[in-house]
Amino acid sequence: MDSKRAVILVSGGMDSATAVYEAMDRGYEPYLFHTSYGQQTESTERECAKVLAEEVDAADFLHIETEYLATIGTSSLTDDSIDVEDADLESDEIPTSYVPFRNANLLAMATSYAEANDCSAVFIGAHSEDFSGYPDCRPAFFDAFQSVIDTGTKPETEIELIAPFVEWSKTDIAERGVEMDVPYELTWSCYRESSPACGTCDACAFRLQAFQRIDVNDPIEYEQRPEYVDE
Amino acid sequence: MDSKRAVILVSGGMDSATAVYEAMDRGYEPYLFHTSYGQQTESTERECAKVLAEEVDAADFLHIETEYLATIGTSSLTDDSIDVEDADLESDEIPTSYVPFRNANLLAMATSYAEANDCSAVFIGAHSEDFSGYPDCRPAFFDAFQSVIDTGTKPETEIELIAPFVEWSKTDIAERGVEMDVPYELTWSCYRESSPACGTCDACAFRLQAFQRIDVNDPIEYEQRPEYVDE
Repeated sequence: MDSKRAVILVSGGMDSATAVYEAMDRGYEPYLFHTSYGQQTESTERECAKVLAEEVDAADFLHIETEYLATIGTSSLTDDSIDVEDADLESDEIPTSYVPFRNANLLAMATSYAEANDCSAVFIGAHSEDFSGYPDCRPAFFDAFQSVIDTGTKPETEIELIAPFVEWSKTDIAERGVEMDVPYELTWSCYRESSPACGTCDACAFRLQAFQRIDVNDPIEYEQRPEYVDE
Repeated sequence: MDSKRAVILVSGGMDSATAVYEAMDRGYEPYLFHTSYGQQTESTERECAKVLAEEVDAADFLHIETEYLATIGTSSLTDDSIDVEDADLESDEIPTSYVPFRNANLLAMATSYAEANDCSAVFIGAHSEDFSGYPDCRPAFFDAFQSVIDTGTKPETEIELIAPFVEWSKTDIAERGVEMDVPYELTWSCYRESSPACGTCDACAFRLQAFQRIDVNDPIEYEQRPEYVDE
């Protein structure tokens, strides 16, 4: 192979956008992969993912409808009957936004996509602060999934699962992204169906906190911008 | 939990039908899970899976459209431009019917479904003769996937991935199924879109061979019934 190719999971948010730039910085030609699973913010996220694919001149953009996760799930991201909770950044409980085993589903798709396109890597933008809440964001999970890839693909296929931020904080990601000029104005993180972003859900709180900690202005608009930086 | 519950992957074919009866024989209440991914024989397989769910009075039947596997795949099962090959039972090559990493996709869905329904097991009817061709049917693959389940689900979730026939031949499955009175007349295995079954594709050849070896009449109709029993 002359050039390296990588599938990158893109949600439309800042972590995965940074992962795209990280992959390109490591010399990979980007194949962007986005899913919709009936989450309340689906159309905004999808539009952001597509705009990002155009921005980086991606080799390919694949969108997969995975509404079945909404059918199966009992999560606030997919079930209109469960309200999105306000952020509690100190909580160790599994948040109601959990979709059972979501990342395994997405990584399985991404690996199929990678194998069909001779890609040698799959990037996912999960980070260390995700694992307080989501079991399928932990390093042990990614290690296990690497073994599934190694044993479950063709002998000649070699696909490395790369979670470049798995030991990082969201603040580290923001810092790295700013360094690589990631166009964060094109991304969307809010869990609520509102425009501008609410500023108070889990996703907004963690994002604002990251930018506040590196003292950089988050270029997207918010309904409110509470201070999330610790004393 | 008073009763044990299990998700069983059902394709509409004989192996997975036998897996349903095996799960029930081990005391599990069956949750049947079927996917369509644009395979040429989709409607027949789906109908067989549904009829089986009714036959066993399943606690639930979930059907998921996974057309994305057709979008991604380059397989003869999903791509009309690739012909289905006649059987070569001695071949060690990966058959053209391979869908990249298919079982990982299906098992990820099945696990989400299991976790959402408090099931403690996921059954898959893969057997030893599958692994000459399909990397994602091997014991090492299932072992790796068990680790993904253990690390990627909630701490209180315990789901065992059970591939009861993984060391068996298809002949062993037929023998066990006949013993449990599996209604094989309700199943469909042929890879070709034809009725009755062709009798000559890989799937028909292996199925006929299994029944011929135990000297039992396969109750479905075939266009032709070549002798597949070895000298």
